[in-house]
Amino acid sequence: MTANAAPTSDRELILTRLIDAPRETLYRAWTEPELMKQWFAPLPWTTPVIETDVRPGGSSLIVMRGPDGTEFPNPGVYLEVVKNERLVFTDAYTKAWEPSEKPFFTGIITFEDEGGKTRYTARALHWTVADREAHEKMGFHEGWGQCADQLAALVAKL
Amino acid sequence: MTANAAPTSDRELILTRLIDAPRETLYRAWTEPELMKQWFAPLPWTTPVIETDVRPGGSSLIVMRGPDGTEFPNPGVYLEVVKNERLVFTDAYTKAWEPSEKPFFTGIITFEDEGGKTRYTARALHWTVADREAHEKMGFHEGWGQCADQLAALVAKL
Repeated sequence: MTANAAPTSDRELILTRLIDAPRETLYRAWTEPELMKQWFAPLPWTTPVIETDVRPGGSSLIVMRGPDGTEFPNPGVYLEVVKNERLVFTDAYTKAWEPSEKPFFTGIITFEDEGGKTRYTARALHWTVADREAHEKMGFHEGWGQCADQLAALVAKL
Repeated sequence: MTANAAPTSDRELILTRLIDAPRETLYRAWTEPELMKQWFAPLPWTTPVIETDVRPGGSSLIVMRGPDGTEFPNPGVYLEVVKNERLVFTDAYTKAWEPSEKPFFTGIITFEDEGGKTRYTARALHWTVADREAHEKMGFHEGWGQCADQLAALVAKL
């Protein structure tokens, strides 16, 4: 349940879980701000502001707040949206199609039926090996792993 | 007719022309490989290979060939497609959604009705000021300008 799949390139990080919830519920938890706020940051971090315009070219804004109150805004843009199946977004643009200060990664989230549960896979594709390494050192596996636990706990209640 | 509009930021280059052809014809010239090959490189450069999968997330491949025969492949991805109105593409991905070696620019092409002609505007948005400057030194205005002349000459015959 906590195994990480093998990344397909040295610029990619990947996390996958089998979660006991329908794809539709996981998709809601990934797109509806009020649900996202309940799991999207690894506690004690929080996400006081989440805005999602879930369509290709739509903007997203996720403000992360650290334990000391410092806030980190993360603007991005959705590149591809397949309801209940797939979300692709990137921080390479702050809105359609304004280049950000620094293209860091592209996220690909997939939800697949698997034995009555859902195979949840989150991939982070970076432009450079250095950025993949930095993301890993920032705690990708621990952070996204803890968030996946929070996500699984939330959807179990929905 | 040859004036350049004011760029909206120091990371942007822009070229605009009033062209005596309908939007639909200009859009065809920008999306159909056999038409693109007739104007897309500033002669004596040519484009022996052009492939276009014109949809958001679709790939494009443009191979430019210099006077000495050296070929330069330019893979990219369409981000937004509004038929006869607007095309957005970038070299930040080689295909959906594989990050390229180097995100250099995003192109936004618009076709607007203006007094029985078409206002053609090509914008190049870069991630850094240095890349905008490099693009300018590579001959953006001369190159894209010459191509716009070639485009106008082609659509006049269609």
